Amino acid sequence: MDKKRVTLEEIFSPRGVAVVGASEVSLEGKVSFGGLVALGLVMAGFPAVYPVNPKFEKLLDLPCYPDLLSIPGPVDHVVVTIPAEGSLDLLDQCAAKGVRSVHFFTAGFGESGEEDRADLERAMLERARSGNFRIIGPNCVGLYVPKSRVVNAPNAPLEPGSIAFVSQSGGHAQNLPPFGASRGLRYSKVVSYGNALDVDECELLDYLTEDPETEIIAAYIEGVRDGRRFIDSLARAARRKPVIVYKGGRTEAGRRAAFGHTASMTSSVAVFEAACRQVNAIQVDNTDEMIDVLAALRFMRGIPAGPNAAVVGGGGGPSVLASDDMEIEGLRVPRLSSAVQEELRSRLPLAGSIFTNPVDTNNMVVPDVISFTMRTVGRSPDIDMIVYHMGFHPIGSWGLGRFSTPAFLESAVEAILGAQEEIGKPVLMVLRPPQDLEGMKEYLAVQEALVQAGLPVFLSLRDMARAVRRIIAWKGRTRTRG
Amino acid sequence: MDKKRVTLEEIFSPRGVAVVGASEVSLEGKVSFGGLVALGLVMAGFPAVYPVNPKFEKLLDLPCYPDLLSIPGPVDHVVVTIPAEGSLDLLDQCAAKGVRSVHFFTAGFGESGEEDRADLERAMLERARSGNFRIIGPNCVGLYVPKSRVVNAPNAPLEPGSIAFVSQSGGHAQNLPPFGASRGLRYSKVVSYGNALDVDECELLDYLTEDPETEIIAAYIEGVRDGRRFIDSLARAARRKPVIVYKGGRTEAGRRAAFGHTASMTSSVAVFEAACRQVNAIQVDNTDEMIDVLAALRFMRGIPAGPNAAVVGGGGGPSVLASDDMEIEGLRVPRLSSAVQEELRSRLPLAGSIFTNPVDTNNMVVPDVISFTMRTVGRSPDIDMIVYHMGFHPIGSWGLGRFSTPAFLESAVEAILGAQEEIGKPVLMVLRPPQDLEGMKEYLAVQEALVQAGLPVFLSLRDMARAVRRIIAWKGRTRTRG
Repeated sequence: MDKKRVTLEEIFSPRGVAVVGASEVSLEGKVSFGGLVALGLVMAGFPAVYPVNPKFEKLLDLPCYPDLLSIPGPVDHVVVTIPAEGSLDLLDQCAAKGVRSVHFFTAGFGESGEEDRADLERAMLERARSGNFRIIGPNCVGLYVPKSRVVNAPNAPLEPGSIAFVSQSGGHAQNLPPFGASRGLRYSKVVSYGNALDVDECELLDYLTEDPETEIIAAYIEGVRDGRRFIDSLARAARRKPVIVYKGGRTEAGRRAAFGHTASMTSSVAVFEAACRQVNAIQVDNTDEMIDVLAALRFMRGIPAGPNAAVVGGGGGPSVLASDDMEIEGLRVPRLSSAVQEELRSRLPLAGSIFTNPVDTNNMVVPDVISFTMRTVGRSPDIDMIVYHMGFHPIGSWGLGRFSTPAFLESAVEAILGAQEEIGKPVLMVLRPPQDLEGMKEYLAVQEALVQAGLPVFLSLRDMARAVRRIIAWKGRTRTRG
Repeated sequence: MDKKRVTLEEIFSPRGVAVVGASEVSLEGKVSFGGLVALGLVMAGFPAVYPVNPKFEKLLDLPCYPDLLSIPGPVDHVVVTIPAEGSLDLLDQCAAKGVRSVHFFTAGFGESGEEDRADLERAMLERARSGNFRIIGPNCVGLYVPKSRVVNAPNAPLEPGSIAFVSQSGGHAQNLPPFGASRGLRYSKVVSYGNALDVDECELLDYLTEDPETEIIAAYIEGVRDGRRFIDSLARAARRKPVIVYKGGRTEAGRRAAFGHTASMTSSVAVFEAACRQVNAIQVDNTDEMIDVLAALRFMRGIPAGPNAAVVGGGGGPSVLASDDMEIEGLRVPRLSSAVQEELRSRLPLAGSIFTNPVDTNNMVVPDVISFTMRTVGRSPDIDMIVYHMGFHPIGSWGLGRFSTPAFLESAVEAILGAQEEIGKPVLMVLRPPQDLEGMKEYLAVQEALVQAGLPVFLSLRDMARAVRRIIAWKGRTRTRG
């Protein structure tokens, strides 16, 4: 065979996508994953979506085809949502149609634990080799490539970005982008690869290491077949770009779930963690932490030189809580020098204020007070970063509804940016989300303004502190190695 | 003196409230706490609010009085927001007017660290003793008693409930009710007592121990003056009702902030924790945990007999994550027996499902599937509770927008309640909140239906597991002693 193997680069920009097994999306009874995938592609504006299902003549206002070969235009990518039993016949059609890649949304293969399903997987892989196309999955949600308008579900964000996410889990691949969207996280490529029959985590990491569109790589891994090869790929990637790894199956119950999920024999957590440390990947414990680390890496104005934070924001009790949360998670809240305290005291009201660090002053929502306070504490040589925390809730103890005035919000954001610029140290914003709709409206408006201004936003002090502590440790190891 | 000292019961149902120092609520410059308090009382429908400020004739469409003695009707409670310097004169007016209680919102007393301010506090206490009224604070937000329509800020929820919260911090006293409101938490009395010049945590605990309107007591404490007396009060309370304690100032930085906040010399964390364990109070690490423990205590259908949970919900990756999160936080996710697994397998689709525990089946949003799955796993003798987790996000991988149909939501909730009733074990709902407005609308609708049905709702598996683990341990100690 002298045919060149299809590359991932080719897979990521298909001319036409067929969705085999698409049917009507309805609120009753069974979920049509195929219908949802087709709907997602249409909503994303992908220009050549071909539903395939002999039961329908039209679907989502598109012509629906009885089989792959009836499709008039070129089909580079096929999404499969029919039961596993029909896989081999379908792959024969794929070869005849000359596709580049076949993504099996369908589950019920090797991960089911049934021996005949493992045999089926082997036969599928042979079909792919001889037909010169690649298989993604099975048992996953496949591709999300915003630049190409290829999505893994309806309503996926369409703006491309510089983060790549390689995920053995489809759920995490679908969840990470929307959950981080309001915090400004955007993606170059997200690939859910499930059982990793053909395209696996190593090939993906190798590709992303060289991909000029990707600046940060995140990975969710349940298990790997070839540990040595994986560590080599991870090491190469981590030398070039920040790599964040979340290893699923850290507990006995988690390992059992991972086996049922993708047939992964998850390796020992200790071995995996040691390997990640060795190659200097950033490890996280769950997808929320992954989003926090991504937000910090993507938006922090440089990495803090050390763990010492000045904490500013509103409320005495919240300041006590902030101090405890920060220090419990490994950052430090050092006492400000007497000189800095005196300077704060000279301009801010005494009553109801705390100046030692945290700094609590009632008017920390007024631009002048923001500006003065942040510049004063930020100039202190004992401080590596400023953390600005604020609560949002219907009683309005913080903000008092001020930030619903666009002009006020704009000047507050400008004050924060100006202070960050002057002191040359990162500012981290912690906005505790409210639990009511009115509050959420104001919250999202504030969050959007901060993100647009290029500031990292976190949902809790603990989450922020944990993420920043991990990044400082990672940077320290990077420096040590030169 | 044979005058009977004013009781807390009398303070909690004032006939008239004066707000001294109220001024206009504006978006510019200075915050008028007095104006906000008055506004809150008016919005809450409190019938007799009297703003006091010589600068205004009217405020918030109410007559504004130059001093306390000009107010025509009875004034039982006075909220003070003028600077500390005017305190003694004001207290002389209070004595002349015959008020029952004076709440100093004003800060800048003993907690400022200035010696003359400590002297001022002592003089204030003498005035209160001779004038036969009580002082709440200074440096706090005072009372929130929904039954009496007395609130500590605008927009406080007005429906009364069975939880009491005693808080040294005003911020936490204002935050806890709204943050827990959507999860069904309602309050009998919330008292923020700040510097505890007169009314202190011990008197409050003693009152709430006997209060028939209070079933659960929560407390935020930075420091106490008389440790022996506090432990006695706490012990009496904890023998009668569940008591949840969050001790602020667990770290060096937190202790420094607590001193700046309420002049509290926070005691050793180890000593405090040992004392809480000894009297069997439930300790938490922050206000979010407090809300989680309250939601569990208030709504769980009995306390789980042990730590073994069946986890049901959607997604392979999320199931791995759920297992890890639960076990890391100290609950257990035991493998289901072969018989239970076989029963699940006989009725649910094989492809894409996990049956071992967690149980992941794609149709876990369909009432019949919910009902069958929960009854089957719940009947297992190895299981002490069922945890149902679901994600909400714009891509719609869970729910697929179904729960925006009221009829569908209703039947799903009925299926959950029916299963809980049959198996006689608690069901805990974990709903991960989305980060967009459309998602939040659906989320809040689902949350409200679940809460109305009497189910406990949590925002993350970790939070739920930590709260339930604490409650199981507390119950275990109760049993041992009982």
